[in-house]
Amino acid sequence: MTDLVLLSGGMDSTAALAVSQHAGRLGAALSIRYGQRHAVEIDHARAITEHYGIQHYILDLSAWGALLSGSALTDPSVDLPYGHYAAESMKATIVPNRNATFLSAACGVAISLGHDQVVTAVHAGDHAIYPDCRPEFIDALNEAIALGTEDAVHISAPFVHVSKTQIAAIGADLDAPFELSWSCYEGGALHCGRCGTCTERIEAFRDSGVPDPTVYQSQAA
Amino acid sequence: MTDLVLLSGGMDSTAALAVSQHAGRLGAALSIRYGQRHAVEIDHARAITEHYGIQHYILDLSAWGALLSGSALTDPSVDLPYGHYAAESMKATIVPNRNATFLSAACGVAISLGHDQVVTAVHAGDHAIYPDCRPEFIDALNEAIALGTEDAVHISAPFVHVSKTQIAAIGADLDAPFELSWSCYEGGALHCGRCGTCTERIEAFRDSGVPDPTVYQSQAA
Repeated sequence: MTDLVLLSGGMDSTAALAVSQHAGRLGAALSIRYGQRHAVEIDHARAITEHYGIQHYILDLSAWGALLSGSALTDPSVDLPYGHYAAESMKATIVPNRNATFLSAACGVAISLGHDQVVTAVHAGDHAIYPDCRPEFIDALNEAIALGTEDAVHISAPFVHVSKTQIAAIGADLDAPFELSWSCYEGGALHCGRCGTCTERIEAFRDSGVPDPTVYQSQAA
Repeated sequence: MTDLVLLSGGMDSTAALAVSQHAGRLGAALSIRYGQRHAVEIDHARAITEHYGIQHYILDLSAWGALLSGSALTDPSVDLPYGHYAAESMKATIVPNRNATFLSAACGVAISLGHDQVVTAVHAGDHAIYPDCRPEFIDALNEAIALGTEDAVHISAPFVHVSKTQIAAIGADLDAPFELSWSCYEGGALHCGRCGTCTERIEAFRDSGVPDPTVYQSQAA
């Protein structure tokens, strides 16, 4: 009865890890390399697992990312969009079928390590742009994986109906180490403060009233 | 309206490729490395794609296989079982959640390459041992992936209700190059003729009346 938490190193999965620990189910964390330009997030994930004293597994799917083209997250020839996360322009950051791939791979790893649940931090704010973050997708994949593994493992998506602002509040209540987390798609030395995911991060802290521990390089108005 | 065929290099996926070609949908083939001890099958897959004159993509998920333990196919410390493919002992060859992982990854690649269907050669003889080869699993995963990709790609499993003996007959009708295919789990110079998948191969040719082009090292009675 333990969780393998998919930990990108961002604030959502950091809060999901805090929720799992609070529930007494925290087993280990799994981070995935897929050729993302912001691979610095993996170092942040490592620091977060050290904070919790849990095992951190890293799965290298960069060969998969290399076969994909056209996503701003993995293809250096595509420009990163700036502005609001929910905007149409953010579709450039779609990695095709990413969550089915990551969750399926993670479920195999969980079975092998003896965990019976994989936790993903997909949240309500992702629904507009990313079809593989919607509750009906998570439900359907859960059904498929239950059938494919004879119920050995399930997916939990505690934030699938929760906004990022609420995630900030929940995480703060549970002492999630947000100061160790990383959101920025640019993957520079500091959060850029202008890309879609920085914009979303800034809003979540501001709207929840949780102090934002992040140092931004610049900040859009 | 083209297929990306998951091609292990075995006789089932070779026949599936022939079916796709016959339907005028053959786009390309994708083979997956996952640390399988019979990685020689990838060379056979390559020869089969050369026979058809199509692009052959190879996806290296061996880092995923390395995180798994306990399967005879990927863990050198686990002995390969011999005897009949459908026997209980064959459960040692289960790779946890393999088909969800492979099919999900392949669907992402298909979208990126512009194919709208991924073909898998799972067949009726696999159902007893492998839950992720059953029709209800394929249907559920198809539903999940349709939701997760907004219908950009679907999975086709033309043999999900077809026996391996029927696959041999269908493939022979369509001139599938079975002589180029590889089944044996041992991955030696010749098919061993004794492991579960060799046993199944021998039976399929024998029961279908299709001449078996394979040279076996030895053959169980």
